[in-house]
Amino acid sequence: MVNDTTPSANGNSNGSTKQKPQYDPEFTDSVISATGPNASPRMRSVMASLIRHVHDFARENDITIDEWMQAVQMINWAGQMSNERRNESQLLCDVIGLESLVDEITNKLLVGAGADYELTKSAILGPFFRHDTPSTHNDASIIKNMPSDGEIAYMHGIIRDAVTGKPIENVIVDIWQCSTNGLYEQQDPAQTEFNLRGKFTTDKNGYYGLYCLRPVPYPVPDDGPAGKLLQLLDRHPFRPAHIHIIAGNNEYTPLTTQIFDKKSKYLIDDSVFAVKDDLLVDFKPTKANSKASLELVYDIRLARKS
Amino acid sequence: MVNDTTPSANGNSNGSTKQKPQYDPEFTDSVISATGPNASPRMRSVMASLIRHVHDFARENDITIDEWMQAVQMINWAGQMSNERRNESQLLCDVIGLESLVDEITNKLLVGAGADYELTKSAILGPFFRHDTPSTHNDASIIKNMPSDGEIAYMHGIIRDAVTGKPIENVIVDIWQCSTNGLYEQQDPAQTEFNLRGKFTTDKNGYYGLYCLRPVPYPVPDDGPAGKLLQLLDRHPFRPAHIHIIAGNNEYTPLTTQIFDKKSKYLIDDSVFAVKDDLLVDFKPTKANSKASLELVYDIRLARKS
Repeated sequence: MVNDTTPSANGNSNGSTKQKPQYDPEFTDSVISATGPNASPRMRSVMASLIRHVHDFARENDITIDEWMQAVQMINWAGQMSNERRNESQLLCDVIGLESLVDEITNKLLVGAGADYELTKSAILGPFFRHDTPSTHNDASIIKNMPSDGEIAYMHGIIRDAVTGKPIENVIVDIWQCSTNGLYEQQDPAQTEFNLRGKFTTDKNGYYGLYCLRPVPYPVPDDGPAGKLLQLLDRHPFRPAHIHIIAGNNEYTPLTTQIFDKKSKYLIDDSVFAVKDDLLVDFKPTKANSKASLELVYDIRLARKS
Repeated sequence: MVNDTTPSANGNSNGSTKQKPQYDPEFTDSVISATGPNASPRMRSVMASLIRHVHDFARENDITIDEWMQAVQMINWAGQMSNERRNESQLLCDVIGLESLVDEITNKLLVGAGADYELTKSAILGPFFRHDTPSTHNDASIIKNMPSDGEIAYMHGIIRDAVTGKPIENVIVDIWQCSTNGLYEQQDPAQTEFNLRGKFTTDKNGYYGLYCLRPVPYPVPDDGPAGKLLQLLDRHPFRPAHIHIIAGNNEYTPLTTQIFDKKSKYLIDDSVFAVKDDLLVDFKPTKANSKASLELVYDIRLARKS
């Protein structure tokens, strides 16, 4: 943090030799106290905290009108780029790690601070999920358009109760990935709708299985404010190779996660900070399966709803 | 602020009896340290501070994915409502006092912390300024459409150097206000373009003068996310009666301010926190002027550019 050496009476810092201006010490409290008596307790406390952080940030960094207006225009730009197929404000949050952080917070709250069993770790949803992916049968392929440089993987596993270890029947497993050009089907007019997406249901043995592509690294869309921010921060836009998963049902809390090819580039510098060691997986060459050159075994452990 | 009693080792608070989850204490530093070597020093320090504040805010309040996504959708909505005539992200900042705060910061930085002369106080620009207001001659009227419930005021004053007190010639004084229906001309198809806007130039005596309306209180536009936020905070959307002014030229730092009718409602609970005691003005009844029933004398003191 900048100039965090000697906080002065009004909360400003005086780390530099140039004397910093003293800002009205009562302003922030006056804004917070404008909240009326009928605001919900959650709204009241969250907004009080947000206002205090935003004001402290502005004072600590002496944010000028011009700098603030640049940020305002960037946020307007994000909204203007967003539509049913793209969420640029979400992507802006992703590149500063915020989605990954609220994902951690939400999952720790869901399972409770004292849980002593081993749930599969969560990871961020990202902006490319679709609610309307059709269901299909186990061992189907999600590859509707086979790219010439694609490698087919047989991905399968057992979904278990995280406490008892018992397989769970009728878990919905929603899978999506981009093609080898780095584009999800909704970003790419050349791909058939729902290409590389599928929704599977575990059988009585907890089994799910499908054919998919070995994933590849790709850049997050960098033609908008998130790309501009990455550029200003001198960072690359790449994500490591991954497959998205949501697994759950009425009895088991849906888990949103991503699995990462352990041989991929960008595992240590994912542009959206989603990689966790537990989510690294091994695509193994196989000759036993005529439909795939690779096999990926991935079991998932879910928490029963409380 | 919520639960700000006993910060724990990882920056979380434990004000309640329920144990709070422990979040990864290294995550925020890992996001900040992703910034590359070629980022500008200002970008590096501002974004490090922003990331830390945003992450601390999320952890201190246990922000969930659903809450965060509601905020993301609100920000997208703000961008989608914004255009050349409306800036909703700016308005969102205004209702949490941020524009008023960066206005204070910017003006204190401009005039220097040790300035001992009396400059006219600044106030926020707001979203309704137009860059292309035509110039006109002193003592002209900015009223192109006279509302039936309007009161005409003769507004005039002398622009002076804040140090020497000497009148300044050739200062551009840009004035804008809404009509008695609470709408600025670009919001209201019934108003002629540039109604209630005018750009004046001081004469050799530092004099500017014009005919305008006595301003009225009005609500900020509440059909978008800023209105939604005000509603969630149980606050009204009204601003006290005011007239906008920008005054300056090549030699004198342009001052952006607003003057407020001291008899107006909402002086103590302006929805965008812009009122300052120094900016309260008195519209006095007059019978000496056949063109106006009110007179407002307002002098302005400007800082010479350094």
